Amino acid sequence: MIRDLVLRHVEDELASGRLRVGDRLPGERTLGSQLGISRASVREGIRVLEAMGVIRTAVGSGPDAGAVVVADTAAGITSALRLHLASSALPVADVVGTRLLLETWAVREAARRRDEPPLEAAQALLDAMDGTEAVEEFLRLDAEFHVTLSRAAGNAVIAAIMTSLRGAIHGYVLAAAPGDWAPMARRLRRQHRNVLAAVRVGDGDRAARLVARHIEGFYRATSA
Amino acid sequence: MIRDLVLRHVEDELASGRLRVGDRLPGERTLGSQLGISRASVREGIRVLEAMGVIRTAVGSGPDAGAVVVADTAAGITSALRLHLASSALPVADVVGTRLLLETWAVREAARRRDEPPLEAAQALLDAMDGTEAVEEFLRLDAEFHVTLSRAAGNAVIAAIMTSLRGAIHGYVLAAAPGDWAPMARRLRRQHRNVLAAVRVGDGDRAARLVARHIEGFYRATSA
Repeated sequence: MIRDLVLRHVEDELASGRLRVGDRLPGERTLGSQLGISRASVREGIRVLEAMGVIRTAVGSGPDAGAVVVADTAAGITSALRLHLASSALPVADVVGTRLLLETWAVREAARRRDEPPLEAAQALLDAMDGTEAVEEFLRLDAEFHVTLSRAAGNAVIAAIMTSLRGAIHGYVLAAAPGDWAPMARRLRRQHRNVLAAVRVGDGDRAARLVARHIEGFYRATSA
Repeated sequence: MIRDLVLRHVEDELASGRLRVGDRLPGERTLGSQLGISRASVREGIRVLEAMGVIRTAVGSGPDAGAVVVADTAAGITSALRLHLASSALPVADVVGTRLLLETWAVREAARRRDEPPLEAAQALLDAMDGTEAVEEFLRLDAEFHVTLSRAAGNAVIAAIMTSLRGAIHGYVLAAAPGDWAPMARRLRRQHRNVLAAVRVGDGDRAARLVARHIEGFYRATSA
C-alpha cells in the first residue's frame, strides 16, 4: 500500500547503511517526489516511523527542523503493547508471566557478568527511592530499576522488551497501588536491595528466586 | 502533542470498554470534531494505530469502509523490531539469545500443558514442510511452526513477541539460507519432528535441549 512505501524505503536505506542513527531524512517534498507519492502520504509514513521510535521530528524551520534517525528501540513496542493491553487482547496475567521469565533470566545473567556501570546505576536508583514517598515517583524509579537490571544482562532485544512491558503496564501498576502506601514501599525497598545484593555477589540462583518472589508478591498484593 | 490525541483517545475508549475488538471507529470528521483537531491529524493517528495492529482500515465507502478495531497483537512489535534491526540498534545475536530464552521456556511449558489443538496444528505444518523444496515457502512454514509451538505454551504476550521476532528476522533468515538447500532442509525437518515428539510425550527438558540445539545450529550454519 502507498502508505507503507515510506517505511519500506527507510528500512532499505537503514539496512544498506546509506542512512544511520543521527542522520536526517530528506524533507517531505523530496521524499514524496523520490517515491512518487503525495506529501500527505509521506507525512503519515513519518508519523508511523516516529511512533516506532525510528525517527524524531522537531518543529520549526531552523537547522534542527525535520526528521532525525534515532534508536528508541522500545518506543514502538511500548505503544503497541499498551494499546493491546487496553483492548484486553493481551491479559495482564501474561505480562506477569513474561516479566517472570525475562527478569529471572536477566538477574542470573547480570550476576554472571557483574558489569559494574549498570549495577551502580541500579544502586543509585534504589538510593533515590529511599528519598521519596510519592507513589508515582517511586513507581517510575522502580520501573527504571528493573529495566536497568535487565540492561545489565547485556541483551538489547530483551532490554527493549522489558522497557516496553514496564512502560505499557505503568498505568495499571499506578492504579493498583494501595492507598496505604508506606508499608508496601518499605517491603519493595527491602526486596530490591536483596535482589541487587545477590546480583553483585554473583549469586544468580538467589537473585532469580528473590526477583520472582518480588514480582509475584506485588501482583498478588495489588490484584486482591 | 496533537498527533498523540487520537492514540490516547482510542486507548481510553478501549480501557473503559466503550470500544471493543470488532467495533468501528467514528469517521475522521466526527473524531476530529470530538477531539478538536484537523482531519489530517486524525488520519495520521489512524495510520499509527493501523501500524500498531489496533485497527484495520478498508478502502471504499460501503458498510465495510472505515476503521475497525482488531487485535493483531504482533503487528506493531514486528514493524518496530524490523526497523531497529535494520538500523543495527538491535543486533541479530541478541535476537538469537531472545529466541533461545523464549523458545526453551515455551516448549517446556507446552510439554507440561499438552494442549492438543496447537500441537496438531504444529504437526500439520511439519507435514506441509515435507511437501515443499522451495526455500521461501519452507521458511514461512518453519517460522509458523515455531510460533505455533510458542502458542501451545499459553502466554499471549510471549506468543506475540515470538511472532514479531520471527516476522522481523524473516528477511535475514531468507538471505542466509545456503545455496545447497536440500541437506539443510533434511536436517531441519528431522530436528523439528524430534522437538515436537518430545513435547507430545511431555518431556520438557528434552524438548528444551533439542530446540536450543536447533536454533543455535541454524545460526551457526548460516553465519559462517
